[in-house]
Amino acid sequence: MKKENNDPAKQENAALKAEIKELRGRLMAQQQEVRAKGLPIIVLVEGWSAAGKGSLINELISEIDPRNYNVVSPVITPENEARYPFLYPYAKAIPENGKIMFYDSGWMEDCVRKYLRREITRDEYKKRVRAVCEFERQLRDGGYILLKFFLDISQGEQRKRMSALRENYETEWRVTDEDLWQQHEYKLFKEGYEAFMEKTGKIIPWHILDGSKKSLAARDALKLLVGMIDKALEQGRYVGKPFKENFPLIKMPKLAEVDLSPALTDEEYKKELKKLQKRLGELHNVVYRKKIPVILCYEGWDAAGKGGNIRRIARPLDPRGFDVMPIASPEPHELARQYLWRFWTRLPRSGHFCIFDRTWYGRVMVERLEGFCSEDDWKRAYNEINEFERQLTDWGAVVLKFWIHIDQDTQLQRFNDRQNTPEKAWKLTDEDWRNREKWPQYEEAIDEMLQKTSTKNAPWFIIESNDKKYARIKALKIVIDALEKACADRMS
Amino acid sequence: MKKENNDPAKQENAALKAEIKELRGRLMAQQQEVRAKGLPIIVLVEGWSAAGKGSLINELISEIDPRNYNVVSPVITPENEARYPFLYPYAKAIPENGKIMFYDSGWMEDCVRKYLRREITRDEYKKRVRAVCEFERQLRDGGYILLKFFLDISQGEQRKRMSALRENYETEWRVTDEDLWQQHEYKLFKEGYEAFMEKTGKIIPWHILDGSKKSLAARDALKLLVGMIDKALEQGRYVGKPFKENFPLIKMPKLAEVDLSPALTDEEYKKELKKLQKRLGELHNVVYRKKIPVILCYEGWDAAGKGGNIRRIARPLDPRGFDVMPIASPEPHELARQYLWRFWTRLPRSGHFCIFDRTWYGRVMVERLEGFCSEDDWKRAYNEINEFERQLTDWGAVVLKFWIHIDQDTQLQRFNDRQNTPEKAWKLTDEDWRNREKWPQYEEAIDEMLQKTSTKNAPWFIIESNDKKYARIKALKIVIDALEKACADRMS
Repeated sequence: MKKENNDPAKQENAALKAEIKELRGRLMAQQQEVRAKGLPIIVLVEGWSAAGKGSLINELISEIDPRNYNVVSPVITPENEARYPFLYPYAKAIPENGKIMFYDSGWMEDCVRKYLRREITRDEYKKRVRAVCEFERQLRDGGYILLKFFLDISQGEQRKRMSALRENYETEWRVTDEDLWQQHEYKLFKEGYEAFMEKTGKIIPWHILDGSKKSLAARDALKLLVGMIDKALEQGRYVGKPFKENFPLIKMPKLAEVDLSPALTDEEYKKELKKLQKRLGELHNVVYRKKIPVILCYEGWDAAGKGGNIRRIARPLDPRGFDVMPIASPEPHELARQYLWRFWTRLPRSGHFCIFDRTWYGRVMVERLEGFCSEDDWKRAYNEINEFERQLTDWGAVVLKFWIHIDQDTQLQRFNDRQNTPEKAWKLTDEDWRNREKWPQYEEAIDEMLQKTSTKNAPWFIIESNDKKYARIKALKIVIDALEKACADRMS
Repeated sequence: MKKENNDPAKQENAALKAEIKELRGRLMAQQQEVRAKGLPIIVLVEGWSAAGKGSLINELISEIDPRNYNVVSPVITPENEARYPFLYPYAKAIPENGKIMFYDSGWMEDCVRKYLRREITRDEYKKRVRAVCEFERQLRDGGYILLKFFLDISQGEQRKRMSALRENYETEWRVTDEDLWQQHEYKLFKEGYEAFMEKTGKIIPWHILDGSKKSLAARDALKLLVGMIDKALEQGRYVGKPFKENFPLIKMPKLAEVDLSPALTDEEYKKELKKLQKRLGELHNVVYRKKIPVILCYEGWDAAGKGGNIRRIARPLDPRGFDVMPIASPEPHELARQYLWRFWTRLPRSGHFCIFDRTWYGRVMVERLEGFCSEDDWKRAYNEINEFERQLTDWGAVVLKFWIHIDQDTQLQRFNDRQNTPEKAWKLTDEDWRNREKWPQYEEAIDEMLQKTSTKNAPWFIIESNDKKYARIKALKIVIDALEKACADRMS
């Protein structure tokens, strides 16, 4: 009889190893189903410097086909930091259906460290915490499996590990000044991490792993991951229920109540247009220098005159500083991700304009009416969109939303006109006629959308466009007003 | 009779204005056809600081629907500069079919200014010039309309304009230190620009515009643009003819000559695998620190064992430092651009590994055999791909290409095995069987590909995979050899 078989520590170790092996086997077996069912999985690994985040991820992936997962180690580039919302790099990286994305530290570190370094104010920190909660819930409600780990080690353990790394020439570079500062301010960070986890753990819980023993942490993480996947495979993809948060809303009229008679003479139009475009051009310069992002959203009836309206706004802008984004049906790689992803990835850099020709509101119009998403999905979207837009305005963006409005007679006239004019005929499709037949259903959906998503920070404007000239001038004025206000509010 | 009508200068001015108006009208009219025919257009506007590049672009776009064009002002971020090939931001920005992209200064400025500032060596400069010529020709041959302008002003004129800008608080910031340095070193820059234009004007000519008179420059630019579009609309989308450049090639055997018998025992395999993976893990650290980009290309017969081979390579790598890119059929937005675009956009950051599971070689295999591109297209591709890969290795990348090879009998065995094993059945599709029937045609295409694209800088390796264990060990050894060499060659 060998002696070591009686050593309880060794027996325990062997049992742990066997358990890890078994869990890895299960994870490997789950893969194919995860892919077939298109489950997207996010594993966020946060924790202390030198706690072993990288090694933990290595343990988790060791039996996963590398085509099925990715690891992002969010390099916070100065470009991302300065010019985009703070969630931008994380939102861009979400996995597509059937894949697993590991974040090797992410939004938690980004919030807590910056706050402790006083690079962001308390107010900004609070906004970020709120945004994180919203972001995580939206992912979960969109069917993502989201697992959040915090890898914990004591101050002494961290000191020991950092010393060991620094003693060796090969590994010395791994310990940065930031890490040393964290070691020095361990207590401060501990409070920071705990406070953050408390605030953000209510919807998606945090799992604290003991980083002092690598294989224990690996076992616990594997167990949680395998368990979550099993549950999801059994219960099917989760679809979040709609719920309401209280956003400060602006009361909007029903479309049927809107007086569409306002019109301008050619002369009034020309004079105003010239003056306003000149002013908008000047303001674009200021916006650019003050690095204010500007997001204009265009929605409206077919043939309402969106294109012409957009052109009048775009004309005076410095072409280096704006983009027009025509939004068509989503492509396969877009459908394979949360529905706001294709808008996250199209956000303008700060100081730039982005004019969306159709927007994320497709969710509560065409996708609702054509059944491209479930009822829970589109009902949830009002709130999700309000949150998304608040994240944009919290970032500093000016967000304005236009509903370009006409009545049914005017649409018919314009359709006929298009049909009868060869140069314009391409603009009219069969789909336009089909949509026209659904006018009442659309009107109902639009009324609901306007009621529920015209927030103070990102308001809707109904632009009466039976007379296109009037509509263009009105939109220009709204943009100019908003920009003047934003420029006055902000210091250079 | 009014006096001014006799003033020849004023008459000329009025004529010029009328001409510009007429040209703009034609450009506006061309738009719809450009869109319908899916013509992609690139307008590169280079020139002196303060020559009026932005204004010129403004003149060109004033009648174009903003949904049809974009302007990029390539912000050379430190991230792009340090971590990607220099053409990367330009290649990423190419327009999709039917759209116009204006580059407000681009690859010319990027080459010339850096060379004059001695930020790049003469050798690096020469490589960039060559890459530019290749990039432009490939775009043209892929059906892009490419128009290159250089906006010229004299030293005196530049001095005058800069002074005017600097005198005004509102515009002062527009003149950077770099601009002042250019003004001071006007002669040096003149020589630099001229030399660059001479070298890069042979395939796609440069058009020098007189920047001293804004409307003259606008007229000339519009005339050229409208003329090129007219020609393209009349003659149809251009398809470049294949041609051969002399790349130093490595002689490859025909597939039929390859001896597929090599095999390893389980024991040999396990021993070697452990040793080699350990070594690869160590090397990844060095590669990461030396910022060497590593690109591994996997091609091979269906069921040859690509996936398993990739897993053995990926296993020891730091998951933060590699990506596996499975390449499926192109999506619509990818089909709407030059075929290499979807690979440009997937390049790894320097110091990272990218493992392509299928690659750009689809062009000369499946696209050739299924008729997804024209004969000229795939015949041209050998050369284009060699150029692309040389651009990658010039950037510093290690590029290795594996043909995972089996014989027909082995494939049949594996297909049958998959069919009869429930857990594996998903791996086998009808397409696999269809491809199998075309084995002889594929073999011919692959032989041609191996002969024509195994360059010294980016060689092919045939990996005998009848025995998967042997194949994995062979691939690992090749990667390790190449990395050891690359790491030894390069200073930290």
